[in-house]
Amino acid sequence: MSFSLRNGLKLITLLTDFGIKDGYPGIMKGVIWGIDAQIQIADITHHIPAQNILTGSIVLNRSFDYFPAGSVHIAVVDPGVGTQRMPMAARLGEHFFVLPDNGLITLPLQKALERGWPTEFYHLDQPKYWLTAVSNVFHGRDIFAPSGAHLARGVPINELGTRIERPVTLELPQAERTAEGWRTQVLDVDHFGNLITGLSAKQIDPLSVQRVRVAGVEIPGLVKTFGSGKAGDLVALIDSDNRLSIAVVNGNAAERLAAQPGDQVDVVLNPGLPKERA
Amino acid sequence: MSFSLRNGLKLITLLTDFGIKDGYPGIMKGVIWGIDAQIQIADITHHIPAQNILTGSIVLNRSFDYFPAGSVHIAVVDPGVGTQRMPMAARLGEHFFVLPDNGLITLPLQKALERGWPTEFYHLDQPKYWLTAVSNVFHGRDIFAPSGAHLARGVPINELGTRIERPVTLELPQAERTAEGWRTQVLDVDHFGNLITGLSAKQIDPLSVQRVRVAGVEIPGLVKTFGSGKAGDLVALIDSDNRLSIAVVNGNAAERLAAQPGDQVDVVLNPGLPKERA
Amino acid sequence: MSFSLRNGLKLITLLTDFGIKDGYPGIMKGVIWGIDAQIQIADITHHIPAQNILTGSIVLNRSFDYFPAGSVHIAVVDPGVGTQRMPMAARLGEHFFVLPDNGLITLPLQKALERGWPTEFYHLDQPKYWLTAVSNVFHGRDIFAPSGAHLARGVPINELGTRIERPVTLELPQAERTAEGWRTQVLDVDHFGNLITGLSAKQIDPLSVQRVRVAGVEIPGLVKTFGSGKAGDLVALIDSDNRLSIAVVNGNAAERLAAQPGDQVDVVLNPGLPKERA
Repeated sequence: MSFSLRNGLKLITLLTDFGIKDGYPGIMKGVIWGIDAQIQIADITHHIPAQNILTGSIVLNRSFDYFPAGSVHIAVVDPGVGTQRMPMAARLGEHFFVLPDNGLITLPLQKALERGWPTEFYHLDQPKYWLTAVSNVFHGRDIFAPSGAHLARGVPINELGTRIERPVTLELPQAERTAEGWRTQVLDVDHFGNLITGLSAKQIDPLSVQRVRVAGVEIPGLVKTFGSGKAGDLVALIDSDNRLSIAVVNGNAAERLAAQPGDQVDVVLNPGLPKERA
Repeated sequence: MSFSLRNGLKLITLLTDFGIKDGYPGIMKGVIWGIDAQIQIADITHHIPAQNILTGSIVLNRSFDYFPAGSVHIAVVDPGVGTQRMPMAARLGEHFFVLPDNGLITLPLQKALERGWPTEFYHLDQPKYWLTAVSNVFHGRDIFAPSGAHLARGVPINELGTRIERPVTLELPQAERTAEGWRTQVLDVDHFGNLITGLSAKQIDPLSVQRVRVAGVEIPGLVKTFGSGKAGDLVALIDSDNRLSIAVVNGNAAERLAAQPGDQVDVVLNPGLPKERA
Repeated sequence: MSFSLRNGLKLITLLTDFGIKDGYPGIMKGVIWGIDAQIQIADITHHIPAQNILTGSIVLNRSFDYFPAGSVHIAVVDPGVGTQRMPMAARLGEHFFVLPDNGLITLPLQKALERGWPTEFYHLDQPKYWLTAVSNVFHGRDIFAPSGAHLARGVPINELGTRIERPVTLELPQAERTAEGWRTQVLDVDHFGNLITGLSAKQIDPLSVQRVRVAGVEIPGLVKTFGSGKAGDLVALIDSDNRLSIAVVNGNAAERLAAQPGDQVDVVLNPGLPKERA
């Protein structure tokens, strides 16, 4: 499969838990531009909570398919760097990934399978596509950045390593049916303090939601957007990721409710309406 | 008007209150590069305080005219996303803007009017320049990023929507004349803890300043730069934005004075010198 | 010397203590692109602790030589802006720097001297390579960004100013020999809370390390990587910068030990093994 962009440019994104104070993401850009200085690079984030593979997978999944076909997504949340976990390249439809085989691919892979995209996975075991000296502690610099750069400049993915049949995937917290509707949890808290839950708009008809319970409070129904209500109102809505979210109009729901990832969220459905989408 | 850069490159800047941990600014870059992967993109900031339109306007105004003519500035501080406020494109002289019509344009517009630049404003009401699916909650991704990309790749601004006569503008806190000089306030606190006030170097002759009073302390006269004095000295000076600022040499004035935006600042002028510039 | 990249592209990196909330690094990109909009720009970091020249030099040294030959590194940690300290351009081998002559160059220069690279230094005293209006307070925008852009677009370094013989350098904290091995200190704490010490892998044989003492605890020997051990284990290892570092497996050593830069670190060598590398 050809993965050149239509205008010949080459795109890489970076997603890590490295933070931005120590220069590590910049070093990865230096390695990439040392291989091909025409590659365009966008930061997705470097603020995945340290070693939190699940949050890394959520943010990667939220982002990757807004980039054009052929983009290469380098994702490094890698508590097992230098141990037995494998460095991996993956293709999901027209999207490419370079990342540790530790479950980071889970949510993009789930999306690919739902959409019937072709998938392939390779163990990055060809040192000619790495830096000459490989440390035990910074494969983002020594293996993932150079492998991603070679992929973006046109090396076919199957030359980067040996085929893997099934990558490692995470067990995800699943929303469950209850007598009154659904039980899910807070998966993530965003920059605005919005509580992002594990319940997808695919699982519920927004019109059928009667109440949402979280952290001891009840919120009536869903609103359309963050500004629907008076400043300070607690609201529930479907967010830009198509997930049920809890927000405060012009405020911070996580602070207001002292809520955090893992907190239970109950959705009470209107009994007179269909409980589940076809 | 043609807005191509002299060498054919295309530039976009991003200014938001999205923060950088959740991937939202990266997603906007993906949307832009999906339309034209040759566009260069610079982040101005993603750390405008949440929903603070005034600070957004101050930082946008500080930055935009250091970019070359023809650059497109996408600014999204948008508490009213999905409500009646209009998405807007604007031209101020040779500078282009894509942003909500909620007052964000206020300070760049004031600069344009002071300089006699031509201005024009459009309601972004042409869905063919948006993403196909538009959410109620993330117009940065769904409307502003694609509209900005089309503008940067050469679509004339008047094709993006219907002409607006007057955009929404904010009431700005104004410095006032007092018997002894000027009364203003802290508008913003920068990363170094410098207190940026509402008084401009255009309003005062720096040589005429006898004392500056803030948070119960008095500072004698103005110094030339941040390093003028001993480490720990509290000083007043004209900053890089041509505003009166209060700083601590090698230190943090906001922490030292427990000062914050809105705090009153009094400037006492030397009675023997002219009080106001012509 | 020619410093064009092999494919004709031009690269600049930025390292500052400006933070990212106020728009200052974005303004520098605007100035650079106003001179040549084809220059690629990477942020190394804008989170050097305010006015901390030593940390700036450490991060600059960790990063610069991962960028291709001919890259221009603009570094601005500049407590003396607008005072007598000189703005400077430097060449170390095939790497270019634009920065204040205040000691920021110290560690890259030490690396250049160790490797026998040619070096040259110039006082940026040619206003034609600056912005037209130069403030006393933001030379990053007014002098360093435009000088770096001219260098990256091909102006020979010796046209930017007058030759300087020796740049200012910092006194660095040196690791010392002790009866039992080495005494050094914590130089920096990274985003993960790892404690980076002043002892280099060039100074010790990793196999010879028997114990590391810091903050009242003793750590046996060195491990290979951050994941070598159980979650929560305190470990010592050689980091990606070839320095002795102290980490907690999947955790934060600085928080665990309440450790900070300047804290003493003692290394006890195995008496039966060679104490020092040739």
